This record gives sequence, structure tokens and C-alpha cells, in this order.
Amino acid sequence: MTTTQKTMTTQEVADRLVELMRIGQVQQVQEELYADDVTSTEPSHSPVASAKGKIAVMQKGAEFAGMIETRHGGSFSDAVVGGRYFSCAMTLDATFKGKGRMNLEEICVFEVKDGKIVSDQFFF
Amino acid sequence: MTTTQKTMTTQEVADRLVELMRIGQVQQVQEELYADDVTSTEPSHSPVASAKGKIAVMQKGAEFAGMIETRHGGSFSDAVVGGRYFSCAMTLDATFKGKGRMNLEEICVFEVKDGKIVSDQFFF
Repeated sequence: MTTTQKTMTTQEVADRLVELMRIGQVQQVQEELYADDVTSTEPSHSPVASAKGKIAVMQKGAEFAGMIETRHGGSFSDAVVGGRYFSCAMTLDATFKGKGRMNLEEICVFEVKDGKIVSDQFFF
Repeated sequence: MTTTQKTMTTQEVADRLVELMRIGQVQQVQEELYADDVTSTEPSHSPVASAKGKIAVMQKGAEFAGMIETRHGGSFSDAVVGGRYFSCAMTLDATFKGKGRMNLEEICVFEVKDGKIVSDQFFF
């Protein structure tokens, strides 16, 4: 018996990411949709550093999550899709440990290759 | 007599850009919405090079337009807005001089400061 798995399109990857982000499953996004050699690019003023490789990118996500004391709310837009790339707008209203309450707003760009996310980049 | 002009929000800049792009007024977008010190970042495989400064960016736009023999169609998505940034998906179905017909699909990210676009970046 053989099993075949259809490669997801950019739109399918985008829809699954949005679905998971809206229920707060950030780690599941990375486990399920990220390629092993993914790169994650943060702006120089980000509280977390850019990372390369799925394990390092997941550690970065965990590091950021660990900075949050209380999550008050947030939102994740539908994706706009263009070829191998898609982007979303994200907001996060949270109290950060030792830093108080902040409302983050950003644009995220994702690159898809062979049905997996091979890069993400954040703009804020 | 004094006149005051309200600084446009990111959403207002995004809406105006989308409105102009949908009627093909790329040059008007740059003239009206771009800051004098805007930077425009293209991927390394782009047929046109990244540019810095409104005049150079407009020249880049004209250079790209000059490569098109016939424009068959295209689309420009609504913008998703996150803080000072917004992004759109764009398609262009065109015949390029000496290269034949191609369907370009890309994501564009724009950064707004004081009501003007201070950077754009293209992903394809």
C-alpha cells in the first residue's frame, strides 16, 4: 500500500495558518506548516532575534510567548495571496512581563515552497 | 488665511493606493503618496534594481513600464493593514518585450510615516 499526499497550494497553506492563528495555535502552525530550513526575519528593534531552522524558529516563538504575562486580545486578518507569498495583519493586546500593556500591530509575510513555509518576515 | 492638511492614516494611504492602482495610475501613486526619501526594495532576481529616493523610484517604475509590450490584465487586492504597514497582492498578465507573455503574482508591503509611504518591498 502506498499513500500519496497532495502538496498544499499557497492559498491552502495561508488558510490553514489563519485558521490555527485564530485559535492561538502558533506552535501548531510551526510544527505543521514550517519547512525544516525555514528562516524567520524580525526587524532590528524586535524583542526577539531573527532565526534560521525550524527548531530555532520554534524556540524564538516560545521565547516571545514567555515574555507575555497576560494576553488581553488580538486579531488575525484573512490572508492576501500572491504567487508563492501571502501576508496577513496581526494585532496583539498583551501585558508583557516588566513592560506593561502594549498593543502590537504588524504585517507578516510568508513564503511557501513545495507546500511548506520556507520564510516568514515581520514588519512593525 | 491658513490651510491645514490632516495627516493620512495608514488605512487612508492604503485605500488611496488601492484605488489608484486599480485604475492603473502607478505614477500618480508615487507622486501623491511617496515620501521624498522613499526606498524601494526588489528581490535579487527582479528585472529592475532596488532604488532610493522618490525620483529614482519613479524612474524604476518607468523602466519597468517600458518593458511591457502589451498589458492583458491584472488585479490588485484590498490591503491588509497592521500599524504603520500594509500589504496587497498584485497580479499582472502582460507580454514583455522580447520575453513573451507572463503572469506575475506578488505581495507588496508598504511602510507609512507621517502620512507618506517611506518604503515599499516586493516579494515574488
